[in-house]
Amino acid sequence: MQKDAEIIDFTEITRSADIAADRHGARAKCLQRLVRMDLPVPRTVALSFDAVHRLAQGHVPDTAALLSLFGKAPLVSVRPSSPNQDWGGPASILNIGMNDTRHAALCDSHGETAANALYLRFIQAFSVHVARLDPDMFEPEAPSRDALRAALDAYAEETDEPFPQDPGRQLLEVLRSMARAWEGTTARLLRQAKGAPAEAGLGMLVQAMILGVGPGESGSGVIQFVDGTTGQRRISGRYLPQSQGRDAISVREGALFLARDPRGEALEDRCPDLIAQLRRYGESCRLNLREEMRIDFTVEAGRLWVLDALRVPRSARGAVRIAVMLADEGIIAREDALCRIEPRAVSELLHSQVDPTGPRHVIAQGIAASPGAATGRLVFGSAAAQASAARGEPCILVRRETTPEDIRGMHAAVGVMTERGGMTSHAAVIARGLGVPCVVGISDMRLNRRDGVLITAGGHKLHEGDVITLDGTSGQVLLGGVKMLEPALDDAFHALMRWAGEACDIGVRANADTPADAQTARRFGAEGIGLCRTEHMFFEADRLTVMHEMIFADRPQDRAAVLARLLPMQRADFKRLFEIMQGLPVCIRLFDPPLHEFLPQSREGVKDLADVLGMAVPDVQRRVQALSEFNPMLGMRGVRLGITIPEIYDMQARAIFEATIEASRRGDPVVPEIMIPLVSAMREVELVKTRIDSLAAAVRAERGVDFDYRLGVMVETPRAALRAGDIVQHAAFLSFGTNDLTQMTYGLSRDDAGRFMGSYVKQGVFAEDPFHILDADGVGELLRIGAERGRQARPEVTLSICGEHGGNAESIAFCRAAGFDYVSCSPFRVPVARLAAAQLALSDQARVSHQTGGGQPLAARS
Amino acid sequence: MQKDAEIIDFTEITRSADIAADRHGARAKCLQRLVRMDLPVPRTVALSFDAVHRLAQGHVPDTAALLSLFGKAPLVSVRPSSPNQDWGGPASILNIGMNDTRHAALCDSHGETAANALYLRFIQAFSVHVARLDPDMFEPEAPSRDALRAALDAYAEETDEPFPQDPGRQLLEVLRSMARAWEGTTARLLRQAKGAPAEAGLGMLVQAMILGVGPGESGSGVIQFVDGTTGQRRISGRYLPQSQGRDAISVREGALFLARDPRGEALEDRCPDLIAQLRRYGESCRLNLREEMRIDFTVEAGRLWVLDALRVPRSARGAVRIAVMLADEGIIAREDALCRIEPRAVSELLHSQVDPTGPRHVIAQGIAASPGAATGRLVFGSAAAQASAARGEPCILVRRETTPEDIRGMHAAVGVMTERGGMTSHAAVIARGLGVPCVVGISDMRLNRRDGVLITAGGHKLHEGDVITLDGTSGQVLLGGVKMLEPALDDAFHALMRWAGEACDIGVRANADTPADAQTARRFGAEGIGLCRTEHMFFEADRLTVMHEMIFADRPQDRAAVLARLLPMQRADFKRLFEIMQGLPVCIRLFDPPLHEFLPQSREGVKDLADVLGMAVPDVQRRVQALSEFNPMLGMRGVRLGITIPEIYDMQARAIFEATIEASRRGDPVVPEIMIPLVSAMREVELVKTRIDSLAAAVRAERGVDFDYRLGVMVETPRAALRAGDIVQHAAFLSFGTNDLTQMTYGLSRDDAGRFMGSYVKQGVFAEDPFHILDADGVGELLRIGAERGRQARPEVTLSICGEHGGNAESIAFCRAAGFDYVSCSPFRVPVARLAAAQLALSDQARVSHQTGGGQPLAARS
Repeated sequence: MQKDAEIIDFTEITRSADIAADRHGARAKCLQRLVRMDLPVPRTVALSFDAVHRLAQGHVPDTAALLSLFGKAPLVSVRPSSPNQDWGGPASILNIGMNDTRHAALCDSHGETAANALYLRFIQAFSVHVARLDPDMFEPEAPSRDALRAALDAYAEETDEPFPQDPGRQLLEVLRSMARAWEGTTARLLRQAKGAPAEAGLGMLVQAMILGVGPGESGSGVIQFVDGTTGQRRISGRYLPQSQGRDAISVREGALFLARDPRGEALEDRCPDLIAQLRRYGESCRLNLREEMRIDFTVEAGRLWVLDALRVPRSARGAVRIAVMLADEGIIAREDALCRIEPRAVSELLHSQVDPTGPRHVIAQGIAASPGAATGRLVFGSAAAQASAARGEPCILVRRETTPEDIRGMHAAVGVMTERGGMTSHAAVIARGLGVPCVVGISDMRLNRRDGVLITAGGHKLHEGDVITLDGTSGQVLLGGVKMLEPALDDAFHALMRWAGEACDIGVRANADTPADAQTARRFGAEGIGLCRTEHMFFEADRLTVMHEMIFADRPQDRAAVLARLLPMQRADFKRLFEIMQGLPVCIRLFDPPLHEFLPQSREGVKDLADVLGMAVPDVQRRVQALSEFNPMLGMRGVRLGITIPEIYDMQARAIFEATIEASRRGDPVVPEIMIPLVSAMREVELVKTRIDSLAAAVRAERGVDFDYRLGVMVETPRAALRAGDIVQHAAFLSFGTNDLTQMTYGLSRDDAGRFMGSYVKQGVFAEDPFHILDADGVGELLRIGAERGRQARPEVTLSICGEHGGNAESIAFCRAAGFDYVSCSPFRVPVARLAAAQLALSDQARVSHQTGGGQPLAARS
Repeated sequence: MQKDAEIIDFTEITRSADIAADRHGARAKCLQRLVRMDLPVPRTVALSFDAVHRLAQGHVPDTAALLSLFGKAPLVSVRPSSPNQDWGGPASILNIGMNDTRHAALCDSHGETAANALYLRFIQAFSVHVARLDPDMFEPEAPSRDALRAALDAYAEETDEPFPQDPGRQLLEVLRSMARAWEGTTARLLRQAKGAPAEAGLGMLVQAMILGVGPGESGSGVIQFVDGTTGQRRISGRYLPQSQGRDAISVREGALFLARDPRGEALEDRCPDLIAQLRRYGESCRLNLREEMRIDFTVEAGRLWVLDALRVPRSARGAVRIAVMLADEGIIAREDALCRIEPRAVSELLHSQVDPTGPRHVIAQGIAASPGAATGRLVFGSAAAQASAARGEPCILVRRETTPEDIRGMHAAVGVMTERGGMTSHAAVIARGLGVPCVVGISDMRLNRRDGVLITAGGHKLHEGDVITLDGTSGQVLLGGVKMLEPALDDAFHALMRWAGEACDIGVRANADTPADAQTARRFGAEGIGLCRTEHMFFEADRLTVMHEMIFADRPQDRAAVLARLLPMQRADFKRLFEIMQGLPVCIRLFDPPLHEFLPQSREGVKDLADVLGMAVPDVQRRVQALSEFNPMLGMRGVRLGITIPEIYDMQARAIFEATIEASRRGDPVVPEIMIPLVSAMREVELVKTRIDSLAAAVRAERGVDFDYRLGVMVETPRAALRAGDIVQHAAFLSFGTNDLTQMTYGLSRDDAGRFMGSYVKQGVFAEDPFHILDADGVGELLRIGAERGRQARPEVTLSICGEHGGNAESIAFCRAAGFDYVSCSPFRVPVARLAAAQLALSDQARVSHQTGGGQPLAARS
């Protein structure tokens, strides 16, 4: 039949065969390792990526010759062997070689039931995966002779030809079908979603069948020695007598436990030797493969065979526990343990998660803006959120979008969702800072506050008080409560973080505005505060009133008098932060937002304010209007405010200095860092510095106590980056605020970008959302320019980034390459950032040792 | 008396003396030239800058020795000689050497009246300018013996010492006082305001007095041969018998005309020879000094002396006429004529101006945002402005600030003033484009629209209908009407512009949105349209309705259908522009503004719109809200809109192509340029280009006519500048929009910057308003980077700037240095830009010829 048959390119898996994961796939390589460990692996042959690709292209090899390797009238299985276990692949197919003749022979040797089961399994698999027939044609049935006949008839009916009887053709069809499936669009997209390159190769394994059915103790099972979810050591898996493949897991009925178990019969009860043998194999895998493996085994007439072994699938928590355990036992190096954990996975450990095994009733989908999950009652405003929190009822705050006035509501809520906004909208940034789950940009939901109803695209009408669950990790909104997994800050996590800290060669600080943030930051191992935004401090009710009086004061001396009332509060804020962070640097950004953020926009708000200030409504209205701006992002804020109304910075600097003196009394001396925001010209820094230096001198003189401080600049305008050489003359540090820098470099407001960013990324206009992944080409170039010019003019300058990008592996790689001293990110991103930084440092070291270790140097290869 | 007297450093002005303008001042050098022309100049000695500086520092020279040069008991005058005639200087002092003894002698020789007059003039000048006594002490009186006695007594009374009698001391005091005055703060600030360096030197001239009083024909006068205001050739000036200095001009009573004049007696009637002689001197000055000079002359006993000659002061119009006339007569080269005109002055010629000689009642002062002056009735809104224009009554539109909805009002008004905003606010930009006088940022004025009253800080209450005059050249608001000077687009202006065009080595195009703009641009010699903003085209009432329907259409096909109704209007717009500019390039920027600019913000506006669209108010309200943005400048506009709602660009591109075909039928083929705004990534350009190219193919196929077009990018985000190398792969030209680029590079909205820019510049935080003068260090670096990368990737790319900066000499210098192909500015700035560009080109040529002509090369000197 195979007229054009050519010799197929294959390699039998033996101890010494030339098998490589990047040519034959991970499964092939793993099997070779099992062979080398003397595990009883059936005879297996590996087809290379190249051979499989040629199959897909139409090459017709001599499969009969291949089959002949397995003896006379053999049965074989075919399994995919992709470069990475996680990238998936086509389903394995068993019992190739079964035909009427072989069936008749097996009826004799193994009994009719076993023979029927083997043939039926093959017919079904071939029909579904090779002939692409409808799976529903094959109802699960007892393997009777009738069922077998029905299956063969169904096949012939649908395909207009009898079920193929020639084993060579069977094998060819199976191989070709699997090869083509791998190169199809669906499989390609699926594996790309898992991080595989589009052109990843596929190897295949042809293995002698161990039947698992027939006389004597026969069956198949799966065993693993750790719990993938918790990472705890315990044997799990199942064994099913008279079965093949993964039937023990999928069928369950009649399946046995493995180790002795009070819940029922175990394989150990029947065949204690087999379990002892499997334990030895598991231990051998652990030591030799340096990994927790799940072993697929089959027993045939009492004899144990190992068909395959896979890395135990695991949750983030399981992954951390397993890696740390292997390192603790000296099986792997700590460096390896660090590199085995996906940094993103760590953030799952810090928050509650929706249990992936439970049911989900998704009613809306948005952008996953802050990870973790929470269940609570819906509230539509900050006041309701605070009231709910006061009653001890967890609540989820829903807003069209949040503004600084919502901060207190966000503090009170266990989760936040908004109709508008993107990854770096106000809600997203604040929620990440607070570690509160948050979903933004839920465009298929409409909030009608007036009628007190939230309507989803699916037609759900939710009212205030209804219970929902917010999954900030997936971006889903779920109806009602669901089963949760609690955060996993266990010993293993802390050990991993300790090791990461040792491996890191770039600092990781936290953006922390409140004592609670600072405590979280310390707990997660932040090496200081890289950005303390002070404006949130002014939104508390008593302070807001003072802010209003300050804004309505006309003369500098009046403003100063009003601000003097804020001084003790600010001093207490800073003192508390310094005490929590004692011994570590704290970088305080001076007041940044435009003043109109503190003013009411609504008619009633203006009326209330007029009452409080004892002014006429039109006068209040006029001031509110006068302060309103076309483009607040590009307006009167940051250092511009600091220069125009210097009393604000004066008060803040004094509060910082007095808090420094007080906090230094009871511990290490505190050296605060003061950061000037929104600088675009050197002279701005010079003016502020002059004023702050003289304030420091005044405080020193008044208190008779000396202290140090460092003054620096937040580089967030393109001009500040370009002029870093000038600016650094008055700045001990430059901290790049990548949020605003991205906004200005792109000319794109993060608050307004949400409306089209999704479609922009989908169309590939932007490769990534630049507010999410640092734009290395544009914004990154400004960072490099700023860093170079800053360092050239002042070699000892401290360089850092403190935007939302701070915690991303990509940004950390960028900052390491550019020689930055540290990155700063929200407290809940600190562990992620430290792990990513450690991995980058280790990968660099590996590259260097590879280069100097006699291997071919990298440069020569590229 | 002069105990520490040292020899003074002086040089007598002779043909061969070593006199230099940069050591002795312009007046000294000019006098030497007169001497070389054999004009009868009295003996004169020049003190160098250095000698004067030492005088100011306290050096006490031997002035008696200096005086002895002028013979026995001489009378001398002292005049300042600064490096540049326009920088001013202390007043000249005459008759030094007069004392009681000399008075007695002169009574004998010249008569008592003459002697009294000479002595009295000196006492008064010495008292006021040297002893710094109150000028009011000296009432103008007939030079009687009593008056003389009174003056001497008053001096003694105030100073506690008699009037100094020693001529050496008199001279020393005069010299020292003038030297110190020059170095004082007031004089320094005054001359800095005129463009002088703070440390400019001052020379002084000591000249033998020609008395102008006494027996025979004696007197003094001033003569010039052109009219400084109009530039017309005619003799003007006066002669006053028995007078000195400028008495003929200041006293007038008894003064004679010079040439024969029907209005009264002339010097020519009395002494025709003197006038003939002066005419010869004037002609000699013209030919030798190559300038129109004003000659100070004195006649003593019938003999004519020339004391001094100065460049005739002139208006902008006079300056142009004089320079062109001198060039036409071959006295100066055309290049010199071009370099003699201050480019800024040219813009005065294009607009009506407030007559500088008339009275002004200033009631408010703002930023001079668009030059020229206009008188009209106050209107507070666009509707009123249109109504006023319809009645034929000129009106001045007053707004808190303007928005695109005010465009029609601005078209109808003869002048625009706004309470808020800066040089590049909406009002300013549009007004300059229209050539309408405009004053913005008038912070000492408050518009209360509700009560229909405009209140100035000075307490003036103006109502709608009151007549005011707006001076956009000075930024003043004047009460009532004033005397005006009309625009001066005469032959001389056109000749100058022609020569400028020949000298230019960089193109000058105009930003022109309307046929009227385009006509102005052509009239002023623009070499094309560099920026045609299309959004204004959508604000006309009928089109606005269509825009509203487009915005409220939900499906692409509905939008396309609505836009199809705009197509014929757009096509007509473009066709008209192409016809006016036939033969010249027209660069059309695709639709740029955010859609919410087209929507009403007020409650009534929304109601009206709901009526028109037949929708419910809440639905309209919701759409308006959904489109509103936090930072419109950084939002959904430009290419972002073009990609998200591609139907808009489709319609525009089709309109451009169809207009191209139609306009090419009756003249040169039109090659339109299509510009994509607000680009930040290459892929944006690629997507738009693909769509536009296929539209062009479609139009070619439909019409069966071929045409060319060029597609380019407006570089206005920092990222576009940084990524110019990529972007230019799909762009035939890059036009840098320096307005937006400045906003984004500084992180500063031009609309919001007005509130603090003034104080920022005053405090020196920014050296200049970067929206006014291109920031060469920051924004300029991005321009250089963009230009370099663009040209490297595509050497034939056309580079230009099209922001508000386009017309400034500084920006043009920058663009020439960076190798740009052209600048584009508002039509009324085109002549200024062309002249500035010509001057820069000429100055470069001069430098090159200096370098290659054997002089010391520039590089070696710097």
